[in-house]
Amino acid sequence: MKYKAIKLVKRPDIHITPDVFETVTLETAPLEDGQLLLKQTHMSLDPAMKGWMSADTGSYIPPVALGDVMRSSGVAEVVESKNEKFPVGTRVSGLIGWTEYAVSNGQGLHKLPPEIPAEAVLCVLALPGLTAYQGLVEIGKPKAGETLVVSGAAGSVGSMVGQIAKAEGLHVIGTAGTDDKCRWLEDELGFDKAINYRSEDLAKQLRGATPDGVDIYFENTGGPVQHIVFGRMNAHGRIIVCGMIADYNTDKPSPGPNWLNIIRKRLTIQGFTMPDHWDKVPAMTAKLSAYFMAGKLKYRAHKLQGLESAIEGINLLFTGGNTGKLMVVL
Amino acid sequence: MKYKAIKLVKRPDIHITPDVFETVTLETAPLEDGQLLLKQTHMSLDPAMKGWMSADTGSYIPPVALGDVMRSSGVAEVVESKNEKFPVGTRVSGLIGWTEYAVSNGQGLHKLPPEIPAEAVLCVLALPGLTAYQGLVEIGKPKAGETLVVSGAAGSVGSMVGQIAKAEGLHVIGTAGTDDKCRWLEDELGFDKAINYRSEDLAKQLRGATPDGVDIYFENTGGPVQHIVFGRMNAHGRIIVCGMIADYNTDKPSPGPNWLNIIRKRLTIQGFTMPDHWDKVPAMTAKLSAYFMAGKLKYRAHKLQGLESAIEGINLLFTGGNTGKLMVVL
Repeated sequence: MKYKAIKLVKRPDIHITPDVFETVTLETAPLEDGQLLLKQTHMSLDPAMKGWMSADTGSYIPPVALGDVMRSSGVAEVVESKNEKFPVGTRVSGLIGWTEYAVSNGQGLHKLPPEIPAEAVLCVLALPGLTAYQGLVEIGKPKAGETLVVSGAAGSVGSMVGQIAKAEGLHVIGTAGTDDKCRWLEDELGFDKAINYRSEDLAKQLRGATPDGVDIYFENTGGPVQHIVFGRMNAHGRIIVCGMIADYNTDKPSPGPNWLNIIRKRLTIQGFTMPDHWDKVPAMTAKLSAYFMAGKLKYRAHKLQGLESAIEGINLLFTGGNTGKLMVVL
Repeated sequence: MKYKAIKLVKRPDIHITPDVFETVTLETAPLEDGQLLLKQTHMSLDPAMKGWMSADTGSYIPPVALGDVMRSSGVAEVVESKNEKFPVGTRVSGLIGWTEYAVSNGQGLHKLPPEIPAEAVLCVLALPGLTAYQGLVEIGKPKAGETLVVSGAAGSVGSMVGQIAKAEGLHVIGTAGTDDKCRWLEDELGFDKAINYRSEDLAKQLRGATPDGVDIYFENTGGPVQHIVFGRMNAHGRIIVCGMIADYNTDKPSPGPNWLNIIRKRLTIQGFTMPDHWDKVPAMTAKLSAYFMAGKLKYRAHKLQGLESAIEGINLLFTGGNTGKLMVVL
């Protein structure tokens, strides 16, 4: 059977341009014992992909080799199987890539509970939810009553961070790039306050929203929010560094804050990426599923249609043009 | 009995000038039950004092109130006692202050083993050794074979950090401000490499000394060493932020490094100050005493003579003019 896939054929410069990809038509070979054929239905687009496409920068995961199908996580259905653990009709998630179909031996695939829709899987149970949970709960060790600020709060990770924090009893402030996103955070997701980081009086608004200082800062963006919140950290505050999207598309990363406050306030700043913590995925998935079933984790999906929509669409992540978790419906 | 003490009467501006102090003559009252009279023999001068003298900056310990005797740790002998736990002749350490004599009820005083000389107490067992041990061992969690860089390596804390790290089997690189200090670190203290941070080819020297990258960075200074070492951190590296002496005497703290590398290398950056960890002092003192008795912790004391020498002498800490742990012999 013939199907389309998209290969990475060039490393991106500062921006991701269409010429770094090549759409190819591939054909499936007959399955061997133990193999299964996946038909992907939903393909996730995430900011981390920029790093995966770049030449080896000593990052946490090797770059995608030139000529390989571009890496991504997604939801798929088993449509043929010579593997009894994955009968036809099984729904799975995993690193399936930019492709309509894929052959797998089952390794790295997670079976999905039937009651959770595919969109929710990518928004809640896949990378965004896992990343939010690992960072906020495992590293940040939040305590009810503490104040959390999350930057990029309307993003796929940030929106989960804020909702998990609310479920844990924290006072939650988020920053986002449009007033519409801020209204969504406050009205739909229950954030205590959402602030447009493009506001002229950003510092004043952040001060006003955190009268008792900040105990946990969950960093997704970098930029001015970082510097302002850093100066408002309370003693023994925790800063979880998950993303620096403001600096992914620049060759001149902006300076960070001076370290004096790290001593004065005995701060802990910790960077992390999910691939270091795959062993915890089953336990975290159970927690996230429970939150989701209890109605505590809402999401907004931004759906593109068709495999090739990913080529231009991925840039929405870096312009802030997406309204919700970006994904491609196949 | 009359004695001299030095009070803090003004907050310092950028630099510590003599007019912030006032030397006064005080007189001891007869001791009450439970009290004891201390004659201080050795008084420690430490960089942290700059923070203690400044208006409340939300630091870890309240500032010294104007009109109070300046705060410092020191070694003293009990010369009169109405407290049976501290008979006359007992040697103690504690926060005694800038004074020749002090009355105490015993609280916060540590009895000293007779076999350790007073200078060694201030260099090894007091703040410098405790700070080095808490930061390096408890926070940094060093493993034999790892590479450590310590800035301000010839300082009172840095020299202990490097020696404890050598005793724990690490590869140890230090930076200091003069060639003489570097020779002392390599020849006397057994550092694998010491680098003068004023060298024009500082970055090249640091790269050459850390071919396998850096696992632990113990930060005492800030400045260019911070930026270079930050870029050489290995995956899961730990940065312990203990001091930023380059920025204590400036009103324009220099920017820190961009945070992207915190994610790429999943770094942990942690600030700390000893007063959060007083409960561990007895256990740490035992460890440090054992290292000292085994000849593994050497020190160099820079001794000033007489109480009032502290007034000008404290600035040696900020010019790097001291050659060893700065103290006043009374």
